[in-house]
Amino acid sequence: MIKLGIIGAGRIGRVHTESISNYVPNAEIKAIADPFFAEKGKKWAAEMGIENIYLDYHKILNDSEIEAVLICSSTDTHAQISIEAAKAGKNIFCEKPIDHDLSKIKEVLAAVKKAGVKFQVGFNRRFDHNFKAVKEAVLAGKIGDPHIINITSRDPEAPPVEYVKVSGGIFLDMTIHDFDMVRYLSGSEVEEVYAAGAVLVDPAIGKVGDIDTAIITMKLKNGALAVIDNSREAAYGYDQRAEVFGSKGAVRVENDSQSTAVLSTADGVAAEKPLYFFLERYLQSFADEIKEFVLAVEKDLAVPVNGEDGLKPVLIGLAAAKSLKENRPVKLSEIK
Amino acid sequence: MIKLGIIGAGRIGRVHTESISNYVPNAEIKAIADPFFAEKGKKWAAEMGIENIYLDYHKILNDSEIEAVLICSSTDTHAQISIEAAKAGKNIFCEKPIDHDLSKIKEVLAAVKKAGVKFQVGFNRRFDHNFKAVKEAVLAGKIGDPHIINITSRDPEAPPVEYVKVSGGIFLDMTIHDFDMVRYLSGSEVEEVYAAGAVLVDPAIGKVGDIDTAIITMKLKNGALAVIDNSREAAYGYDQRAEVFGSKGAVRVENDSQSTAVLSTADGVAAEKPLYFFLERYLQSFADEIKEFVLAVEKDLAVPVNGEDGLKPVLIGLAAAKSLKENRPVKLSEIK
Amino acid sequence: MIKLGIIGAGRIGRVHTESISNYVPNAEIKAIADPFFAEKGKKWAAEMGIENIYLDYHKILNDSEIEAVLICSSTDTHAQISIEAAKAGKNIFCEKPIDHDLSKIKEVLAAVKKAGVKFQVGFNRRFDHNFKAVKEAVLAGKIGDPHIINITSRDPEAPPVEYVKVSGGIFLDMTIHDFDMVRYLSGSEVEEVYAAGAVLVDPAIGKVGDIDTAIITMKLKNGALAVIDNSREAAYGYDQRAEVFGSKGAVRVENDSQSTAVLSTADGVAAEKPLYFFLERYLQSFADEIKEFVLAVEKDLAVPVNGEDGLKPVLIGLAAAKSLKENRPVKLSEIK
Amino acid sequence: MIKLGIIGAGRIGRVHTESISNYVPNAEIKAIADPFFAEKGKKWAAEMGIENIYLDYHKILNDSEIEAVLICSSTDTHAQISIEAAKAGKNIFCEKPIDHDLSKIKEVLAAVKKAGVKFQVGFNRRFDHNFKAVKEAVLAGKIGDPHIINITSRDPEAPPVEYVKVSGGIFLDMTIHDFDMVRYLSGSEVEEVYAAGAVLVDPAIGKVGDIDTAIITMKLKNGALAVIDNSREAAYGYDQRAEVFGSKGAVRVENDSQSTAVLSTADGVAAEKPLYFFLERYLQSFADEIKEFVLAVEKDLAVPVNGEDGLKPVLIGLAAAKSLKENRPVKLSEIK
Repeated sequence: MIKLGIIGAGRIGRVHTESISNYVPNAEIKAIADPFFAEKGKKWAAEMGIENIYLDYHKILNDSEIEAVLICSSTDTHAQISIEAAKAGKNIFCEKPIDHDLSKIKEVLAAVKKAGVKFQVGFNRRFDHNFKAVKEAVLAGKIGDPHIINITSRDPEAPPVEYVKVSGGIFLDMTIHDFDMVRYLSGSEVEEVYAAGAVLVDPAIGKVGDIDTAIITMKLKNGALAVIDNSREAAYGYDQRAEVFGSKGAVRVENDSQSTAVLSTADGVAAEKPLYFFLERYLQSFADEIKEFVLAVEKDLAVPVNGEDGLKPVLIGLAAAKSLKENRPVKLSEIK
Repeated sequence: MIKLGIIGAGRIGRVHTESISNYVPNAEIKAIADPFFAEKGKKWAAEMGIENIYLDYHKILNDSEIEAVLICSSTDTHAQISIEAAKAGKNIFCEKPIDHDLSKIKEVLAAVKKAGVKFQVGFNRRFDHNFKAVKEAVLAGKIGDPHIINITSRDPEAPPVEYVKVSGGIFLDMTIHDFDMVRYLSGSEVEEVYAAGAVLVDPAIGKVGDIDTAIITMKLKNGALAVIDNSREAAYGYDQRAEVFGSKGAVRVENDSQSTAVLSTADGVAAEKPLYFFLERYLQSFADEIKEFVLAVEKDLAVPVNGEDGLKPVLIGLAAAKSLKENRPVKLSEIK
Repeated sequence: MIKLGIIGAGRIGRVHTESISNYVPNAEIKAIADPFFAEKGKKWAAEMGIENIYLDYHKILNDSEIEAVLICSSTDTHAQISIEAAKAGKNIFCEKPIDHDLSKIKEVLAAVKKAGVKFQVGFNRRFDHNFKAVKEAVLAGKIGDPHIINITSRDPEAPPVEYVKVSGGIFLDMTIHDFDMVRYLSGSEVEEVYAAGAVLVDPAIGKVGDIDTAIITMKLKNGALAVIDNSREAAYGYDQRAEVFGSKGAVRVENDSQSTAVLSTADGVAAEKPLYFFLERYLQSFADEIKEFVLAVEKDLAVPVNGEDGLKPVLIGLAAAKSLKENRPVKLSEIK
Repeated sequence: MIKLGIIGAGRIGRVHTESISNYVPNAEIKAIADPFFAEKGKKWAAEMGIENIYLDYHKILNDSEIEAVLICSSTDTHAQISIEAAKAGKNIFCEKPIDHDLSKIKEVLAAVKKAGVKFQVGFNRRFDHNFKAVKEAVLAGKIGDPHIINITSRDPEAPPVEYVKVSGGIFLDMTIHDFDMVRYLSGSEVEEVYAAGAVLVDPAIGKVGDIDTAIITMKLKNGALAVIDNSREAAYGYDQRAEVFGSKGAVRVENDSQSTAVLSTADGVAAEKPLYFFLERYLQSFADEIKEFVLAVEKDLAVPVNGEDGLKPVLIGLAAAKSLKENRPVKLSEIK
């Protein structure tokens, strides 16, 4: 039984807490810390059966029984807490992105390396049943050499402008998952990015300097091309599709929905909308990524999504932002 | 927190034990009993965190803290244990079928009534996301008045002949779920049954007096017609589809599979097979039926699948067996 | 170039005339006859480029240049015209059903045999791209030995009661195509039929002694079971699906629609309804059956749907009618 | 009855000839001309019932009975023949592209304008049932304002290098249809293009200076973004899909195949590949574009795809070629 500490009890912290309780039998959450814990939050944590509820995460770092921490706090605190946790000898599961700043990410990776602890990044979609099926088909050689990776990724509702302001921009906040997916599905690295963007959903997003609609084209090291299309708001819900096309064929995945029910009437033939958003669609993946993290800690295995995997999508995101600003393709080697 | 006892630690007993642990937060399994418990089984139960592991289920019935029992033992013991449990004042969740014998079922229902305890029958498919979606569409009037209920229900592999011998025959063992589904989806009662059957999968099944392939037609009280087609062995896996056709349209559900992946190659366009069998396909439904049972106990509500719902499919199954034997339509009123 | 005469210029006569003009290059319609030709009909025939427009079909039978006739007149005239045409040495394409009366059908088959002319029956669905694909999969052994044939066949709109009255009943008018499909897809013969029926669409249909909703179960010579579900009115349009399930798997076909367009909005995910009715759905099949008939005449080949194929579905239909009336399974051997 | 002349009896000339014979009742092909007519070709034309078979197309231009010509010759001759035909007062249906050279296209458009004749360009996909359904959904406002147009267009087999050499490059030969589709589906104009390309299918294509794999991103006047992904070779056949995503939802179309048959076996669930190539997939559209052209001539209506529609995709193609060469986004205003 691995004892865990959760740092950050916001939405994603709670998702992890609940999925660990339900689905990760060989892990136990010994403590949870959040500087903003109100009564309601503490009550929730107590109901989840967590023994130690702290405001200060250092108490977790100082608890020698705790072997691993999940860093679920706000993005701007990921780097510092990660470094402290590494120094404290804790194995680390860090939510994405590690940071918006490359130098900070590199500091984290250096600290982790020095401490010799595990460091996994929260790219949960790699654990989704659909994307895993695509990956497996590609690995099994069923589509031959990848030529085109095509990802459609659209959120069901634009976030509030207050969120957008501190989000780091669409590429680091939303597309970062898709950049990871391009790397994961292609088995290759991005060399150059061209981003076209527009403000079509909410003018307020434009006013704070961000975009809400984008098409991002990438050239990969293995010669393949990749394209992502993003929207902050799809009226029909969370749209999460992907296709890898190659020399021998293509494999693609469609959205999941609540049931397979099809209703045929005089009005037409109707199916259900996709599952609403990431909590519904990726529920199982949140459990599965932690399961594999815990297994890596327990058996001293390599983590399935490492520090490099955390760094690279940030690099691509920064290149995309630069491309959008300068309206030209940007090589990743330009990003320092 | 409701304390539960599990009676019977075979396959279905374990399914319930595990799903209660993972998904039913307000219930705790205090004890489990099985006369055939070997070391391995006891070890499993201990690992599941069950405090009391018995050979004799009477110890469960005698434990005054235990409010409800799940009867997961072999079918021939359901009736007796149910009656004893009722007398002991336990609320009862009983696996299907209650019994193969009508008079015994009636005794159970009488005992339950007298004791004033809850009695729910394990028709888990009513809690499946797909069938619930059909039911909801019907209830919402989306297809108008039901005219035809069409159910395809095929197992992935014929059971061993030893199992078939004691199964009560295909209608009471396998089709019974489909008979329940006809009642559930139509919101009506079966009046007359005609069953055509054949031995096409395994001649050994025929030798022990059973069939492996069947088409069963039913006339319902509301005037609608229903049809079920069954096979003990579908090469592609567990085939669980249903359609309700009515005056305003039709709603139907398809099989679930592990992913939505579609592979297109020179050989064709390929999707995944259905989820393999009932444990994979109906996993969530096993948890959900217990959740609702626990809720009914906790809040003193009506159970969602009651004794009558347990009785009726047995009646239909007996009528189907008589119809097959006599090769004529049989009215339910003929079955005593 | 084969010269043809069309006898009967109602709906189906016109369908054949037009599809021959467009799609059957090696045939020419030399004459058309209809006792009810009004000015409008004659004008249409002239516009179609038909040289000879008659009220009396005997003029066609007497034209020695005409090698083959299409009998598209009302069902009650099929037998007599077929016999006369056979005596006149014409090759015959006769619309289904040959007759409602077995003895008349047998007379026709005898006359045809004696005259040594070709005789093809208009079971056009055998030429439909979907049903042909099922047949080919079965023939190729892809599903192994057939165990269950499952046909859903529903019309978009109930016919007027005046039509129902003279239709011969649902089994000879509508289900007859499905009976043919059972024979075609199974490659076997029906031995016994059980029909359950109801009047759920239009009470007026019941008043003239017919039904509008039916489930028909059949036992086949090769041991397989078959089931057809029929409705005279599906709110969403013409529903024409089939599945053959066997020892190695199943093959099924869905409806066709005008486009593959799928619309996803806040209301759900919507596709198009099936093509409206038989003229839309089976358009190409009407041309293809005539193409093969003309080829058989030209090259002296066996016709693809012969007199036996015309007789058998009538036998099954009569057995179904008897089964419905007597509420019992009826063997085909009982029908004389 | 409109009398037509066909100029060019290669593959596309024959497609038009045959579809006019079968499906365009109010047009008659009076003459066909091809300088390379061999005996076999002449025989085919005679069998098609064409009275006048010429080597020299001027004979068609000089025939005062012929009201309209279809220019189906090689691309490098389209401009000159169009200009001559306009001067001869013929209405013109010209295959795409009009020319690879902008100035020549402009000469054609000027000549056509001066002569006051109809001029339609052969973008047949606008008449495809699937793409029309998308267009109609967009026009009906079902998806709101278009935000993203996403087109997948892949050929089943790379053309021979000899063809590639004279094709004008992938953008003018293959993508040109997709550029037209972007304009057609969005109802807007392209302002800027960025093209990423690769040689992944056949190195020989790279050696003659072309590419075989491409992703082209476009910014449109209405603010929307569009993306096309192209491959010269999809192992599974002709891949022709499109989606328009907008403020209220999305509409997309999938490939067509020969039947809806789905085969389920122990190996998986298999459907048919897409229809092989453009002749199979777009057969009906070739007839329908001519029907509308003939109607425009007959009734003096505007043609559905005019000279401007012929010019614009060439402009976009030239911009894409420049973008690929210079690896930067190129505005259409840069192309002179």
